[in-house]
Amino acid sequence: MSFTAAAVARHVAAVRESAPLVQCMTNAVVMNFTANVLLACGCSPAMVDIPEESGPFTRVASALLINLGTPYVEQRAAMLESAPVATASGTPWVLDPVAVGALPVRTRLASELLVYKPMAIRGNPSEIMALAGIGAGGRGTDAQDTADDALAAAHDLATRYGSVVAISGPNDIITDGTTDLRLGNGDALLTLVTGGGCALGAVIAAFLAANPDNPLHAVAAATSVYTIAAEVAAEAAPGPGSFALRLLDALHELDAATITARAVIA
Amino acid sequence: MSFTAAAVARHVAAVRESAPLVQCMTNAVVMNFTANVLLACGCSPAMVDIPEESGPFTRVASALLINLGTPYVEQRAAMLESAPVATASGTPWVLDPVAVGALPVRTRLASELLVYKPMAIRGNPSEIMALAGIGAGGRGTDAQDTADDALAAAHDLATRYGSVVAISGPNDIITDGTTDLRLGNGDALLTLVTGGGCALGAVIAAFLAANPDNPLHAVAAATSVYTIAAEVAAEAAPGPGSFALRLLDALHELDAATITARAVIA
Amino acid sequence: MSFTAAAVARHVAAVRESAPLVQCMTNAVVMNFTANVLLACGCSPAMVDIPEESGPFTRVASALLINLGTPYVEQRAAMLESAPVATASGTPWVLDPVAVGALPVRTRLASELLVYKPMAIRGNPSEIMALAGIGAGGRGTDAQDTADDALAAAHDLATRYGSVVAISGPNDIITDGTTDLRLGNGDALLTLVTGGGCALGAVIAAFLAANPDNPLHAVAAATSVYTIAAEVAAEAAPGPGSFALRLLDALHELDAATITARAVIA
Repeated sequence: MSFTAAAVARHVAAVRESAPLVQCMTNAVVMNFTANVLLACGCSPAMVDIPEESGPFTRVASALLINLGTPYVEQRAAMLESAPVATASGTPWVLDPVAVGALPVRTRLASELLVYKPMAIRGNPSEIMALAGIGAGGRGTDAQDTADDALAAAHDLATRYGSVVAISGPNDIITDGTTDLRLGNGDALLTLVTGGGCALGAVIAAFLAANPDNPLHAVAAATSVYTIAAEVAAEAAPGPGSFALRLLDALHELDAATITARAVIA
Repeated sequence: MSFTAAAVARHVAAVRESAPLVQCMTNAVVMNFTANVLLACGCSPAMVDIPEESGPFTRVASALLINLGTPYVEQRAAMLESAPVATASGTPWVLDPVAVGALPVRTRLASELLVYKPMAIRGNPSEIMALAGIGAGGRGTDAQDTADDALAAAHDLATRYGSVVAISGPNDIITDGTTDLRLGNGDALLTLVTGGGCALGAVIAAFLAANPDNPLHAVAAATSVYTIAAEVAAEAAPGPGSFALRLLDALHELDAATITARAVIA
Repeated sequence: MSFTAAAVARHVAAVRESAPLVQCMTNAVVMNFTANVLLACGCSPAMVDIPEESGPFTRVASALLINLGTPYVEQRAAMLESAPVATASGTPWVLDPVAVGALPVRTRLASELLVYKPMAIRGNPSEIMALAGIGAGGRGTDAQDTADDALAAAHDLATRYGSVVAISGPNDIITDGTTDLRLGNGDALLTLVTGGGCALGAVIAAFLAANPDNPLHAVAAATSVYTIAAEVAAEAAPGPGSFALRLLDALHELDAATITARAVIA
């Protein structure tokens, strides 16, 4: 089954229809923006990330995001409480290995979490390479490498953990280890909004919840709609402040015609 | 004394005149938006929420908000330090029982805090019902029930704790257990901005500080002005991103004429 | 060497050219806005603030901000891990003593941090006075005093710790204890956006990284460009919501001609 703009539009409709409840254990910098992105996509965000609550909540959530950007002690414990619950219950969960490789606490945590086989992994090229044990990780959240530089690492992760891997960059690559989908939408302004990448991890979780039968296409559809919305938002935005709010508006408004007209899928 | 649009305008003027210092112990997702909402209303927000500082700060604050959205260990201790100080010193304090009933840590915490008799309680219908011991709470922050569904629970809480209870929803009900005020302003976009409800809790605290003689009217005035500003903001807002910033602008600008023209009070 | 608008423009160009990696250990309320301000200025923000990671990260960062707004236990330990690393490695670091004097935990912490001699200190007048041991500190983040009221305290801090001190207010004073630079840009709307001052601390860190040879001018240039951007943003902004996003746009767009036309330096 090939991946097309029509598939993106169908996945978007399924998300809006089902309004998935997405549990986000994410970094303190981007919690607000991530919740607003999910709301704009028609989802229900819930930032439940303390021990004793996170596991029970994962049992009722539609999907789970684990983002390692500011892994405080309580949140680390909560992540290790929720990940096995998600795996055991078949709830889709996404790992976003922010700055893994460069920093020790989150690098150890990522290893512990990978045991629970995330349904998807999203990161920039240096993070994907570091997670696979190749390279030393980026300087913070910077992507110094291209998506293609990280393709071998992504294939390795996909094969080892049964995950769909999304490599973010000017061009995005989504792979399950066998099929590589290349997406060509987006705008550089997305790199000037903190959480521009992190929020995509949450959207991927939502799309996996709404479209569990085809994780590769669900991850690609989430990436496609998010980067198309970024293009729409960037038009006539004088800078990153305006862009961020227009991105929320665009995610809320995006229709099938716009998706079909804009989607760049290789 | 009946509650009218003129009363709302008087309460707004009193807040702007007195610029209350509002201590917010709120969830990590909405801290930024809550502070900006208070600033737009002419108040001074202060997010002092660590042990050893929170209690002393409550002694000088004009009002206190305790919101249970992300109750980390330190914040829980700080809440239990501040609530008795507020009660002992007669400082108005507001409890926002986010997701109580559904999640165990905050449900226990809410019980411990209720002992200190909040001057107001704000929540969606499922949270109000769960706090009163009726129903199992919502899924995260979703309101599945109407304000009227929670009216008996609100009466019960109001009577037991001497609190004014605000049930948020498409229509809002404010009750002290004897008198029910029904407000009809607002816009659905408010549900697409994270913290849309949480920030109202902080505004209620500010209005109680500025208008301590009539807590029922203070809570109703806060709710009225906030939901009127939401209506103004929603006009011509293409989506939730634009709406959120226009809400801040509208709260900053709102005048008595607009309040009088728009207030829907039953 | 006198400080001129041309110097401001040169410092801005140096920041955009070098894209400094700025480690921010800042308060939970303003993390998001601070990161977005740094991105708009052409920098790479990284909010690494947990023990065991913060010190190693300081070794690779271009500059460090330590802001005491919400000093949770883990962050306090991380601050005390990073400050000596910054000092030992000659990495510029900035202390923002939010509400010091008024609250005990951060007041003790500030004393411990001053030992590591920040390259710059930024605060409102009451915070600068409290940090120098004069006065009792503000009520939260309010500035009740003028920059001139805090000038003696700033001189004292500058001399004792070898720091450049920036006193924020309607007029800003930047001093190294010998030379006082007075800047006259800005807009009152900046006080209605939470983090309006805190984000300037991060910008100061970035400018110190890009222009290490002249800390006095680097701190003044950061303050000048930030307050000029605030003026640009305030034009035609109907309120604080619009203003905050336009500030990000303005920081992103600001050119030498605008700086030259607007800079008020006494």
